[in-house]
Amino acid sequence: MNDYRDLRIALLGCGSVGSQVARLLLEQGDELAARVGARLRLIGIAVRDIDAPRDVELPRELFTTDAERLVLGADIVIELMGGIEPARSLILRAIEGGADVVTGNKALIAEHGPELAEAAEQVGAQLSYEAAVAGAIPIIRPLRESLAGDHITRVLGIVNGSTNYILDRMDRFGDSAEDAMRVASELGYLEADPTLDVEGYDAAQKATILASIAFHTEVPVDAVHREGITGVTSAQIEAAQHAGYVIKLLAIAERLVAADGTAGVSARVYPALISREHPLAAVHGGKNAVFVEAEAAGELMFYGAGAGGLETASAVLGDVVSAARRHVIGGPGVPGSSHADLAVLPIGEVNTRYQVMLDVRDEPGVLATIAGLLAQHGVSAASVEQSVAADGEAGTARLVIGTHTAREADLAATVEALRANAVVTGVASVLRLEGAR
Amino acid sequence: MNDYRDLRIALLGCGSVGSQVARLLLEQGDELAARVGARLRLIGIAVRDIDAPRDVELPRELFTTDAERLVLGADIVIELMGGIEPARSLILRAIEGGADVVTGNKALIAEHGPELAEAAEQVGAQLSYEAAVAGAIPIIRPLRESLAGDHITRVLGIVNGSTNYILDRMDRFGDSAEDAMRVASELGYLEADPTLDVEGYDAAQKATILASIAFHTEVPVDAVHREGITGVTSAQIEAAQHAGYVIKLLAIAERLVAADGTAGVSARVYPALISREHPLAAVHGGKNAVFVEAEAAGELMFYGAGAGGLETASAVLGDVVSAARRHVIGGPGVPGSSHADLAVLPIGEVNTRYQVMLDVRDEPGVLATIAGLLAQHGVSAASVEQSVAADGEAGTARLVIGTHTAREADLAATVEALRANAVVTGVASVLRLEGAR
Repeated sequence: MNDYRDLRIALLGCGSVGSQVARLLLEQGDELAARVGARLRLIGIAVRDIDAPRDVELPRELFTTDAERLVLGADIVIELMGGIEPARSLILRAIEGGADVVTGNKALIAEHGPELAEAAEQVGAQLSYEAAVAGAIPIIRPLRESLAGDHITRVLGIVNGSTNYILDRMDRFGDSAEDAMRVASELGYLEADPTLDVEGYDAAQKATILASIAFHTEVPVDAVHREGITGVTSAQIEAAQHAGYVIKLLAIAERLVAADGTAGVSARVYPALISREHPLAAVHGGKNAVFVEAEAAGELMFYGAGAGGLETASAVLGDVVSAARRHVIGGPGVPGSSHADLAVLPIGEVNTRYQVMLDVRDEPGVLATIAGLLAQHGVSAASVEQSVAADGEAGTARLVIGTHTAREADLAATVEALRANAVVTGVASVLRLEGAR
Repeated sequence: MNDYRDLRIALLGCGSVGSQVARLLLEQGDELAARVGARLRLIGIAVRDIDAPRDVELPRELFTTDAERLVLGADIVIELMGGIEPARSLILRAIEGGADVVTGNKALIAEHGPELAEAAEQVGAQLSYEAAVAGAIPIIRPLRESLAGDHITRVLGIVNGSTNYILDRMDRFGDSAEDAMRVASELGYLEADPTLDVEGYDAAQKATILASIAFHTEVPVDAVHREGITGVTSAQIEAAQHAGYVIKLLAIAERLVAADGTAGVSARVYPALISREHPLAAVHGGKNAVFVEAEAAGELMFYGAGAGGLETASAVLGDVVSAARRHVIGGPGVPGSSHADLAVLPIGEVNTRYQVMLDVRDEPGVLATIAGLLAQHGVSAASVEQSVAADGEAGTARLVIGTHTAREADLAATVEALRANAVVTGVASVLRLEGAR
């Protein structure tokens, strides 16, 4: 049974994911060989420091600090070093040398995905990065292949486990934002510098990748509208609960038409309300999920672990097996996604529903004034309710206004006008409501 | 832009799925050509009756009653006629003629999948059937490809929308089983003969396919232990709610080890309790979902529409695009799943948790008697509670016993002993509790 040919696998990086990938390649060699039709031989692991501590004990002779040389002798290169350089240069070098590349590097794919994909396409190599979005969850392949005969219209993702953990604690256990952050930090959900997570940078990188895969359109990370969860208050969580909603940090990629008729794409990240009946509402703790709406397939959701060394290694190995099978079968890599080159539209063009909490003077005629202001800006109220919360000053009332679908730019102008109006003593909260039809 | 080569597509069957597939192929020709690198030309649609009414208006000249002839001139054959014959013979003929085959025929794949897969493998053709399980949901491809480097341990599927709709109504709206069935029937969720759905035959076919894909093991439909939902009572639903559970009809494929040490696979269908915190509990109405547990990836779930002509057409077209790309690229089909040939184990070997509801004499010493009976059979109680429901006769009490994990055979023997014991006036319900660790 050992008459398989060898495929030489080079691994760049040996952190929590890389060390598990190495372990699985070594431990499951026979089984993988049977599945692929070739032996996946790990020829080396490039690291900065050979003596650094690792999650998994691995044969010392596999380690090298010479990544460039390692790459040149490989059929398949697995890049799990993270960061832009030297990862980018090493991947380009691997592709030029004819190797297929598997990476889990979301920052790199978000910033240089199109460049790398083009390089791979030119030489007929395969570049895959299932692990770069939502860890273990198969999402890139389903979007690219299973839905290849459909039109995706919207993708809503809970793609950052740390912030989902924090919001979930606030919702389910009534934690304050500070307490939830502290627990998340203690449990290792947050990095020493939590900014990447809580300010939505990590989710924005994933939104870029999801938008590019779903809509065949290059969306620069800078073009992703980004709001983190640091502004989410317990009062908002409570009001959401009262109204049958839950607050989730969503990465959204959506096909839409601008007011001037331009067909385009919006990519954005913000905390939003979703109905408790929505499947995304049941995504608890540090889990991830990507909810996809397509013209024919309707609503789909992909749920699972968004992080973790072992979990993410599963996605990496899936890509490695796919690349290896291609080597055995022959033929060029999966065709690059054809480019639709839709316009990337600014947040002002987005149409969604809103929930606005206002503190207003508790006097006659206030509702009429506010309704008038909304109507002036083309925003239509679906519901107005006096809040049960008693956070306001004496002589004021808190109103919770739910709108019908409105343009973000119109809503922003409405909120500005509300702030400027004498009957409004404060705008306590503006949240978007997503996932509704 | 019209210098693509043609790929000849033959469609067999033009029901609710087939007519949508034909429409999408015709309407999205240019776009599909750009994605595939070849034009997908629908050369004909084989039907029994050319004049039968269709969901979609299609050019009359496409229709033919000569399916055999149509098949011979095709590069890709889409089989959506349903039933075993002539579908099976036509697919074999298509494969022999060198065509790739896409089918959504779950009965055929459940019964003859291995035969058809082998025929395809021998000539290097591709056989795909994403639409055969869970309609629009991409599940076959993720199991086969994305998880190709992982070990799947268990698959729990809500794969029959009709029964999920009925159970969901009973749970959420308090419908009786009869009322829920009637509404489901009125809304078109049930066939004129609902037996295939409510007795679990449809789910059993899907369990067979899931088991074969997840474990590379042929599981005959006859070997699937099958219980439908006709025995599910409102009392069971209420007791489940009280205990924090919901009842779902699950198709389960699981890798397990028999008492004698044999490594094997279990495939089964029955209504089971799952925790309301479990992601499957949030699958409402007619939706489907497949929950996958894998050694490295951990828990994954794939959710979406399990039926519907347009929705299912999305899955069919995904397979067609994949087959077409292969034609453009060249090379043989996706390698057949290597055979693990695990033993198919009987239901008695299954290990799970149980909830048993007993009516017992309301007298001292009863609990001790029952605890003794359980212990005798190696079944350990995790909880015993007196039910809030008052369905029993005077002088009796209802006990709800939750067990730790036990062997099905031991539990069956326990239940028999309970029935035979004088203190037990009746066994009101035995349900398995799934989805727990």
